[in-house]
Amino acid sequence: MKHGIDYSLYLCTDRRLMTSPTIEASAESALRGGTTVIQLREKDCSSREFYELGLRVKKITDAYHAPLIINDRVDIALAVGAAGVHVGQGDLPCKVVREIVGPDMIVGVSAATLEEAVRAEQDGADYLGVGAMYATATKTDTRPVSMEELLKIRAAVKIPIVVIGGINKQTLGNFKGTGVNGLAVVSAIVAQPDPEAAARELLRMWKE
Amino acid sequence: MKHGIDYSLYLCTDRRLMTSPTIEASAESALRGGTTVIQLREKDCSSREFYELGLRVKKITDAYHAPLIINDRVDIALAVGAAGVHVGQGDLPCKVVREIVGPDMIVGVSAATLEEAVRAEQDGADYLGVGAMYATATKTDTRPVSMEELLKIRAAVKIPIVVIGGINKQTLGNFKGTGVNGLAVVSAIVAQPDPEAAARELLRMWKE
Repeated sequence: MKHGIDYSLYLCTDRRLMTSPTIEASAESALRGGTTVIQLREKDCSSREFYELGLRVKKITDAYHAPLIINDRVDIALAVGAAGVHVGQGDLPCKVVREIVGPDMIVGVSAATLEEAVRAEQDGADYLGVGAMYATATKTDTRPVSMEELLKIRAAVKIPIVVIGGINKQTLGNFKGTGVNGLAVVSAIVAQPDPEAAARELLRMWKE
Repeated sequence: MKHGIDYSLYLCTDRRLMTSPTIEASAESALRGGTTVIQLREKDCSSREFYELGLRVKKITDAYHAPLIINDRVDIALAVGAAGVHVGQGDLPCKVVREIVGPDMIVGVSAATLEEAVRAEQDGADYLGVGAMYATATKTDTRPVSMEELLKIRAAVKIPIVVIGGINKQTLGNFKGTGVNGLAVVSAIVAQPDPEAAARELLRMWKE
């Protein structure tokens, strides 16, 4: 399961930006449109609420044979039986996460520099989220990663890379031919009037 | 290690209420006064900050041979090698926590009713925090547990019980002879001008 993941279109949920009535509806709509990975990110709910939401979303991702990745909370990932966990530089260190979850769970790491990327791969990351590539409404505290840095990272690590931060129909073309494995998006799917159609169009444009 | 824990004086940290400059100083002062268990509770910091704080506090609790219990975050407890984790009714279910941490880690559960207490014991809890016994500044959203309910809980479960919520020099006498194993306190130690002296006095009064 862990190997052979299709990272082409990787959705991070965001209840503040979504047009759907629920996270579950937002994720399912995205999956109908071909989204290949769902990352569930919740920052303002109790552990019990996150756990119960995770169980509900996992039923949906299972139905679409898509991996569910939990943001930050390694315990929630283990509790719901998620395929993986994604940690940023402000979360638990990758090396510690790997010790907790063992070899079979997917561990993804956010990296904004060559140094962070190389360390993450050394520490057992299965894939990288590199960005933010552009300034976005989702993350206002980050300085964009240059295309030069992205290419250095791509040359330095073997693990899959998804680019994140301002990835949409207008910008995705910039990443063709860079060797990155997929697009991680938030607004470009969940904030659209028709998330399913938005996902389908992003995937079509990325694959053509 | 897990069995034979002395629950006599169980401190929950609280950076909003503490008179000490740091959590580490607050915990160490309490331990010098004889506090037997430290629970680290953080709700508003990043996972990385919680982890790094946990590592620092663990060095202190280890020096005093006192168990460190992490509130809510099972992943942080595992990451820092804590002796245990404490979950409330809004955190991960006890049964799920036990599956994640295995048999050797201490799992504590907050219970406010007989039903919650019995379920927690059935689900693998090692001890209970029963309360809030009185209205407190720390928890304003809870209805006090009656002495009658506490005695029912004590009669129904075999695992150790600490009472929590408004436990201080004035109230601790009410719990003598009830069969509870210890006092869980916040303000009565951390908010005092001299936490070490406060802890020593609480312990003396409880044991006399």
